[in-house]
Amino acid sequence: MSLALKGVPIHFGPFLVTSQVFHLTPLTFALVNLKPILPGHVLVSPRRRVPRVSELTAAETSDLFLTVRRVGRMVERVYGASSLNIAVQDGVDAGQSVAHVHTHIIPRKKADLDYRGGTDAVYEMLDGEEGDLGKFHESHCADLAEERPEQNGDGRRTRFPAVDNEERKPRSLEEMEAEAEMLAKEMEKEPLD
Amino acid sequence: MSLALKGVPIHFGPFLVTSQVFHLTPLTFALVNLKPILPGHVLVSPRRRVPRVSELTAAETSDLFLTVRRVGRMVERVYGASSLNIAVQDGVDAGQSVAHVHTHIIPRKKADLDYRGGTDAVYEMLDGEEGDLGKFHESHCADLAEERPEQNGDGRRTRFPAVDNEERKPRSLEEMEAEAEMLAKEMEKEPLD
Repeated sequence: MSLALKGVPIHFGPFLVTSQVFHLTPLTFALVNLKPILPGHVLVSPRRRVPRVSELTAAETSDLFLTVRRVGRMVERVYGASSLNIAVQDGVDAGQSVAHVHTHIIPRKKADLDYRGGTDAVYEMLDGEEGDLGKFHESHCADLAEERPEQNGDGRRTRFPAVDNEERKPRSLEEMEAEAEMLAKEMEKEPLD
Repeated sequence: MSLALKGVPIHFGPFLVTSQVFHLTPLTFALVNLKPILPGHVLVSPRRRVPRVSELTAAETSDLFLTVRRVGRMVERVYGASSLNIAVQDGVDAGQSVAHVHTHIIPRKKADLDYRGGTDAVYEMLDGEEGDLGKFHESHCADLAEERPEQNGDGRRTRFPAVDNEERKPRSLEEMEAEAEMLAKEMEKEPLD
């Protein structure tokens, strides 16, 4: 992260997430998660808060996915993974919970979710994780809670609860900040292109 | 699709898919599916056959996702949807079956998968669909079947079978070509940016 950009307040949807951000470009930021569904699960978002990919400018779209590519390489290396799930829930009816475009990047290893039923168990877990993000901010950022966007009103999102919601502990802000600092240093090792 | 590019043979992994392609740029193509898991489920791929997003050039990455944005707008309009699932299984250990980068775009409507268990049922269905793609080409392109890349050797992909594998009929080549022609015309209505 360039010094010039350090300390700029970064919002993810209505939430102030500055200290969870480990990479920043003029148009894009990357942040760590409260409850990564696997180690190194991070999010990449445009700095401008729009809900849909179709609302991004061409420059924002290019920068977002060039950043996804670069952050993906980094987390795959740092977490010793061999593949990545890259997913955008683009709109409420696709499962989006925070109305701000965000790309999930989830490092994967061979057979890492066999104990959960197989490779694609990641998607059910993904669904639970997004809800958690809002819960975190309700407890850590009480003053912002009232701005929290509604979940799908009909409760559809609760039909695929992450089966391990009870097992995975929310991480502390300190833990997330330490990971963000580590990842910011690791980003500096990544080639620009 | 520009006339200059029409008739250029397009490969998806080892498979010749020219007649399923409805949009072509110098670096990217978009094609219809054998067994769309929902109406308008299409794939967008780089023309150069590489398995991983990290192997794409910056120009290929930008063009791929600008095309995803544009094709996404089109299928959302044409199929009367309100959201999109956008997903890349980037590498074998993330569930990739054809070793050629491809982005799934799946138009979504409110409550469209409630009868299957909820919004995120799409991911289990996605897993089944990819296997189907290979099966199609084995039966329709017998001469290419020997080139078909291996599924994950340990059979992990079979643990989340699409529950409707038996219900969804593979479409005929004629049906796919008709849809590709229709979508090619619809793409011409989309603004370039």
